[in-house]
Amino acid sequence: MLRGLTRAGAGAVESDERLIELAAAEGFQAVDIDAAGLIKRHGADGAAKWLDSHGVVIGSIGLPVEWRGSEEQFIAGLPALTEAAAGAKALGCTSCCTYILPSTDWKPAHFMAVATRRLRICAQILGAYGIRLGLEFVGPHHLRTAWKYPFIWTMDETLDWIEAIGEPNVGLLLDAYHWHTTGLSEIDIERLKAHQIVYVHINDAPDVPVEAVLDNDRLYPGEGVIDLAGFLRGLHNIGYTGVVSQEILTPSMPSDTPENLIRRSRIGFDRVYEAAGLAPAGR
Amino acid sequence: MLRGLTRAGAGAVESDERLIELAAAEGFQAVDIDAAGLIKRHGADGAAKWLDSHGVVIGSIGLPVEWRGSEEQFIAGLPALTEAAAGAKALGCTSCCTYILPSTDWKPAHFMAVATRRLRICAQILGAYGIRLGLEFVGPHHLRTAWKYPFIWTMDETLDWIEAIGEPNVGLLLDAYHWHTTGLSEIDIERLKAHQIVYVHINDAPDVPVEAVLDNDRLYPGEGVIDLAGFLRGLHNIGYTGVVSQEILTPSMPSDTPENLIRRSRIGFDRVYEAAGLAPAGR
Amino acid sequence: MLRGLTRAGAGAVESDERLIELAAAEGFQAVDIDAAGLIKRHGADGAAKWLDSHGVVIGSIGLPVEWRGSEEQFIAGLPALTEAAAGAKALGCTSCCTYILPSTDWKPAHFMAVATRRLRICAQILGAYGIRLGLEFVGPHHLRTAWKYPFIWTMDETLDWIEAIGEPNVGLLLDAYHWHTTGLSEIDIERLKAHQIVYVHINDAPDVPVEAVLDNDRLYPGEGVIDLAGFLRGLHNIGYTGVVSQEILTPSMPSDTPENLIRRSRIGFDRVYEAAGLAPAGR
Amino acid sequence: MLRGLTRAGAGAVESDERLIELAAAEGFQAVDIDAAGLIKRHGADGAAKWLDSHGVVIGSIGLPVEWRGSEEQFIAGLPALTEAAAGAKALGCTSCCTYILPSTDWKPAHFMAVATRRLRICAQILGAYGIRLGLEFVGPHHLRTAWKYPFIWTMDETLDWIEAIGEPNVGLLLDAYHWHTTGLSEIDIERLKAHQIVYVHINDAPDVPVEAVLDNDRLYPGEGVIDLAGFLRGLHNIGYTGVVSQEILTPSMPSDTPENLIRRSRIGFDRVYEAAGLAPAGR
Repeated sequence: MLRGLTRAGAGAVESDERLIELAAAEGFQAVDIDAAGLIKRHGADGAAKWLDSHGVVIGSIGLPVEWRGSEEQFIAGLPALTEAAAGAKALGCTSCCTYILPSTDWKPAHFMAVATRRLRICAQILGAYGIRLGLEFVGPHHLRTAWKYPFIWTMDETLDWIEAIGEPNVGLLLDAYHWHTTGLSEIDIERLKAHQIVYVHINDAPDVPVEAVLDNDRLYPGEGVIDLAGFLRGLHNIGYTGVVSQEILTPSMPSDTPENLIRRSRIGFDRVYEAAGLAPAGR
Repeated sequence: MLRGLTRAGAGAVESDERLIELAAAEGFQAVDIDAAGLIKRHGADGAAKWLDSHGVVIGSIGLPVEWRGSEEQFIAGLPALTEAAAGAKALGCTSCCTYILPSTDWKPAHFMAVATRRLRICAQILGAYGIRLGLEFVGPHHLRTAWKYPFIWTMDETLDWIEAIGEPNVGLLLDAYHWHTTGLSEIDIERLKAHQIVYVHINDAPDVPVEAVLDNDRLYPGEGVIDLAGFLRGLHNIGYTGVVSQEILTPSMPSDTPENLIRRSRIGFDRVYEAAGLAPAGR
Repeated sequence: MLRGLTRAGAGAVESDERLIELAAAEGFQAVDIDAAGLIKRHGADGAAKWLDSHGVVIGSIGLPVEWRGSEEQFIAGLPALTEAAAGAKALGCTSCCTYILPSTDWKPAHFMAVATRRLRICAQILGAYGIRLGLEFVGPHHLRTAWKYPFIWTMDETLDWIEAIGEPNVGLLLDAYHWHTTGLSEIDIERLKAHQIVYVHINDAPDVPVEAVLDNDRLYPGEGVIDLAGFLRGLHNIGYTGVVSQEILTPSMPSDTPENLIRRSRIGFDRVYEAAGLAPAGR
Repeated sequence: MLRGLTRAGAGAVESDERLIELAAAEGFQAVDIDAAGLIKRHGADGAAKWLDSHGVVIGSIGLPVEWRGSEEQFIAGLPALTEAAAGAKALGCTSCCTYILPSTDWKPAHFMAVATRRLRICAQILGAYGIRLGLEFVGPHHLRTAWKYPFIWTMDETLDWIEAIGEPNVGLLLDAYHWHTTGLSEIDIERLKAHQIVYVHINDAPDVPVEAVLDNDRLYPGEGVIDLAGFLRGLHNIGYTGVVSQEILTPSMPSDTPENLIRRSRIGFDRVYEAAGLAPAGR
């Protein structure tokens, strides 16, 4: 498993280039950045060299398509998707991720039908570039009623949706926070095959009842109550070898320096990997 | 367009064989019966001869799979589906239909995902036999809240679902009652291409506000307030050449003889086809 | 059916804008041009106005993807495909076409597998924009052995391929020349449903044995021996209402003026439509 | 990885029940038998108990559909497929396999299109039962010209075909004999992900030039020249945990007793697992 960083939790990092440097400095092996943007600034060769020289790969790109809005918005995003996918491919990145809000103002069954078609098209385009699409279910209870109707939020519902989409390159983004807030355990991870997981997010939660956990109140790995040792052990046991990327959503950006924040992350990773019995192998 | 009969509205007809005789006697050209059952009783040749000798074809078979229940129920129905499809193919029937309840006790988005996969499998199996799958949206307002959550009930939602299923052999079953209760007009039919319609049901509705129309309170064609002339004109104008089959759901079976009821249907068909300007061409 | 023009047979027309003027002047209703290019030069509104003011629509765009070469070439074309599709959609064009060479230097089964996946991706992208993909089988006998192995060249093989691709928005481009050189008749067209045909090309062939007909030796409609009356009658009888677009491939560009050439085309269309009994309805 | 047996190489075993006993006696963990047949004779519970009591699972069932012949033959097999799949599911078997002949008398591209559709339907039906479809490429050189045209025989061609079929539950059956006769090495296995492999066959080849290896001239594992240590090491290294099942095709059935033949197989397995460094873990 590769240790990765997103910008969420890294503080005021001024550029993707700087994030790569900072990640490398603390032994992180992957970052989630805009691959096409890096190529635009450095050329494909320059971008690849920058990554290589820091020993860092791009873990995942975000899905640059608004699949939750109007049909016009959706198709307006498809050219950007081909560009993003081409950029990711050029830099060896094979994952693209999006998240699923657990409630909606649409009639939910209709939205599910429309979104199934839309995400299938996205998956087909990504598949042409050898990229997989990871769908992140979102667990915090307050979001399940934040909009008019329930949508989906469990892992099993998401697996059913992946089957409905029906493309071989679609799988789960498994986020520790949503795993925690939907009441899952190590055993639930062990029900999966490694290839069903496209990507993994890691973070921690405060010691409050699971129903009260807020989506943007996340802690650094090892600083909260999530059983991250079990989470990582489950992933290891099923043979997951992809990226485990930190994503810390907070009400406001942490004010400490990126250097300090990323060191803190590294210490957190060390702690939870060790607790999982994975310490040396994880790096 | 072929004039067709289902058993709903035909009274106490003792057998599918008798329905074929009665339909033929009043000039109906199609019946909705159990193709595999007819073959079981007469052999494929005998069944085909019985139909031919009466100048009647099988319009559509019902989908013999419980796609709204448990996964066990669903897969338990697949052997019956291959048998039903083989029977339909042997007798030249190319349509299979099912209906969509407009509300559900499932979480609706999850049910949509599961049902999308299930109906896709049904469509694939039917497609192997050259049979199309028609999905009937169900309009009466009281059914939209009969179960806990709204599902889908409009034509446009159903078209979106058909795209989500993604198989070329899936289309609409357009029922005059649901067309009426969802506020559609001739113009809405003219937005369609003929091949998007797999099958058509005809019937009529009492003169009550559209919100108060009950699903099982249907009238014979021409005896109510639905604009069946516009309905048929729309179908004719887009080049629909399939079956228009009567389906009269009522609280209890009509007590008149099948002969009288089917004559009454024939008179109703004559009236509404004439009103649509299709009288002679329709037969 | 709409009468259409491609540039093939129209002579040295200096621009797509001029082709629209010339087409309109002779009563043609559709042209095959680069929609995205027209928008680039005039904006979407300006392009739409130019078309509207001449009473002409865009019949079809070409597929701007090299699906017969390397994987790199294929995916390099996908951004252009999204751009072309967006342009077509903005101008109301709903068809995109490509042709199938009847022999190949690839191992043919392997090429079929690769091309099935590639054209499915193209169809999915086009489908997002409401555009259909038409596949043109190519009949001339000399091309069947022009490369090492036979590929496919009959209508039935192409229909089987369309099923293998499996997307609802893929159909045939039916070209009179290939219909002629594969020995088809009016009856073969009447085996089709209208929606299976995405697009139609019209042209004529010299009076030589069908095995000797050369692909780039085409004549203007009505100037050769193809049974274009039967061709058009078949299309009319199954309810095809799309474009019938002239495509005259010749060894060198005809030297007459575009005005004269397009008038000659118009006279040819008049003649063959009249022979088909479609003269007034066709315009 | 589970050690498995097919009947090919086991001699004159009188029944599937006896094969289970014999396999268990030598420590084999899986057999390839007719699941539906076992259920027919013992009921689902009785069949499951027989397997459990011998510590043996069913590795794979054969695909009971003739997908290489006429369309009538193909669809005639679909009811048997639903029955076979239901039987496999009832006994916990999740693999179904078929093989690909490397040449064909069909026009190969056309056959590829037809077979893509047919195997997709099979995969969909199997998928409904949670079963994967494994496609076995067949390498011996003499079969590449046994019929009129080349079809496909390499692993990469088969992977491309799997993408053309487009169902998530389709993967490779990797047979050591075909791996050997197509010139593959351990490194080629390591290019795969474990989930791309549905099933594995093991056997050995005589010491003749690879071009001269005959398909039905197979040896027991460890008695020939195939690098089975590299084969097994590659599978182990990518995390394959499924069945490795012996399949020894020979001109005539070996005359030794099943007991002796299966003991010989066990000794062969021991030898090649040990050579791969997997000896104790393999059992």
